[in-house]
Amino acid sequence: MYKKNKRSYIREILDATDENTISFAGGLPDKEFFPLLELSKASKKVFKNANCLQYTKSQGIESLREKIAKIYTEKFDFPTTKDDILITTGSQQAFDIILKSLDCNEIIVEKPSYIGALGAFKVLDKKINGFNKIAELNDLLNKKNILYTISDYQNPSTKTYSNKKREKISKILDKKESILIEDGAYCFLNFKNKVKDPISKSYRNSFHLGSFSKIVAPGLRLGWIRASKENISSLLFAKESLDLHTSTFNQMLIDEYLNSNDLFKHINKINKEYFKKMNFMSMCFKKYISSFSFKKPKGGMFIYGSFNEDSMLLAKEALKENIAFVPGEVFYIDEKSNEARFNFTNTSCKDIEKGIKTLASIVNK
Amino acid sequence: MYKKNKRSYIREILDATDENTISFAGGLPDKEFFPLLELSKASKKVFKNANCLQYTKSQGIESLREKIAKIYTEKFDFPTTKDDILITTGSQQAFDIILKSLDCNEIIVEKPSYIGALGAFKVLDKKINGFNKIAELNDLLNKKNILYTISDYQNPSTKTYSNKKREKISKILDKKESILIEDGAYCFLNFKNKVKDPISKSYRNSFHLGSFSKIVAPGLRLGWIRASKENISSLLFAKESLDLHTSTFNQMLIDEYLNSNDLFKHINKINKEYFKKMNFMSMCFKKYISSFSFKKPKGGMFIYGSFNEDSMLLAKEALKENIAFVPGEVFYIDEKSNEARFNFTNTSCKDIEKGIKTLASIVNK
Repeated sequence: MYKKNKRSYIREILDATDENTISFAGGLPDKEFFPLLELSKASKKVFKNANCLQYTKSQGIESLREKIAKIYTEKFDFPTTKDDILITTGSQQAFDIILKSLDCNEIIVEKPSYIGALGAFKVLDKKINGFNKIAELNDLLNKKNILYTISDYQNPSTKTYSNKKREKISKILDKKESILIEDGAYCFLNFKNKVKDPISKSYRNSFHLGSFSKIVAPGLRLGWIRASKENISSLLFAKESLDLHTSTFNQMLIDEYLNSNDLFKHINKINKEYFKKMNFMSMCFKKYISSFSFKKPKGGMFIYGSFNEDSMLLAKEALKENIAFVPGEVFYIDEKSNEARFNFTNTSCKDIEKGIKTLASIVNK
Repeated sequence: MYKKNKRSYIREILDATDENTISFAGGLPDKEFFPLLELSKASKKVFKNANCLQYTKSQGIESLREKIAKIYTEKFDFPTTKDDILITTGSQQAFDIILKSLDCNEIIVEKPSYIGALGAFKVLDKKINGFNKIAELNDLLNKKNILYTISDYQNPSTKTYSNKKREKISKILDKKESILIEDGAYCFLNFKNKVKDPISKSYRNSFHLGSFSKIVAPGLRLGWIRASKENISSLLFAKESLDLHTSTFNQMLIDEYLNSNDLFKHINKINKEYFKKMNFMSMCFKKYISSFSFKKPKGGMFIYGSFNEDSMLLAKEALKENIAFVPGEVFYIDEKSNEARFNFTNTSCKDIEKGIKTLASIVNK
């Protein structure tokens, strides 16, 4: 009677690892940069108001939605009001909410794509189709399906669409009238603190997903959907049937944090540190496993490349030596691959070197 | 392209009300009894550990699962370990997780039933069938469907199954091999602090849902599912695809709260206060709207009864006068009803009297 759904390899790895594992597997931010003190201070204020523990509205608390709207208006010159924002329990929840609200059975995704999105599509029995080149979208998209993209520092490929490519995608969308789900989880994580306009800005029938997980802290499970007011209101039934609303306390906590802290100053700090770690990991690969082929990313939290060896086998061997990384094939719908994803944000430089050295000894066995 | 799903009347009322509304509509606990100070104190400890802001395991943090397991073992003499518990983002989320993990298309519910459950079933396009009397389950249940019950202080009817009825249901389940989802949201809210054994204790293929919303605070969105270890592991794929995991911070916060506070002492206090409010509301009904027919509940947060008038019309008229309650028909799948549900926990005695007096003037117009 139980459906046979395979769990995400990444979540399984996370469950299998312990404090002795050097993990390059998850998309975990560096906890050294969590604004622990600032949030702790904010919580003191929040706890003065008993409403922080009460039920609240399904769409989310207004002042937080206003602040998120302001980010779109100011950072992307993308006019947005609080009515265009729905607060979600992590960006992950957005997939489920949107798919349940639409009468769509097919999703077109990049090859490779984010494993959490693939899982959310699968659990709702959606058909998933992939594309390599943008031109393929001309054949793949239609009025009845959805395009899912991660425009910035794609997970796992680390690629970012140029403005030209964004324009090209938006033109195809215009012609085909598909719905766009654009995942902006990493859009602020550019090592030079630059941002690119989301495709959603030039295509109305779109949902832009945002998250505090990578820029503040994932443990609060706070994300959002940005869409037109009408499209947002079409989502409320699915949202309320899922968890009534996202934690009131967590919403008020981030809201209060944003009242007294400069979010983008904090993001700039993270980007600076992540840039250093990315460079260090690159250097280690070149030094110890020169056969691992990759391009340095311009932002985000991962290095993605390919081995000459079977990366799935390699990942399994590595796990035995307490090293975790993600073999590329789990990011494909049904394809073999010797690619692999390495997270550089959640490990100290010392452990990055130790981990890659150990991995090198397995590769060279 | 958008599905046409009607939002829950209750969530719509909650969205429509403001600080001037006297609301008997939601299932909101009395915020006066939220352990604000205790949680604030706990948060100080939690914020000392940066892991509170990091991603965590999909099943939930171990020490909280252990504590919940202990409640089953000690309060119900129902042997339970941490492996039998999955932490959910509010009890509401449990419906979605369980239904997505099972190959079942029909749910059998009490008439009337909890509107949030009905919504969660509808959004997944499940067929819903209702029953009035337990004997009907002999015809309705089969190997391929699910029985959903709220055994204690049912929402909205406020009824509790006697031990004899629980036995009867469990015997039918044994014979028919259906799956049981037993909602225990109110199971500790007995005015005399007594608990009854859940049906799940005597039927293995069951999911017992629990929640901190009514006994600590709903704003944290923390609930759980209790099932056999094997059944719990069948749920993990759906859980992780929904929101990866429930907020780490909120789990650690409740865990720390439970370390230094006596939960059942707190629950006893709530029950004592709720009993007073229930009696006061009963008295007001008898005094001002004697035609409203109801039985005093033995626990929970509602008075449920029936009017001689059309309760849907009455609710709409009342809302114009800033009084909110829920007309009974929204708790039925497809049936008219003049019943109505009144929450007594979220309103001061002064406002309870004022609200019912105003309602009386509408009834007597």
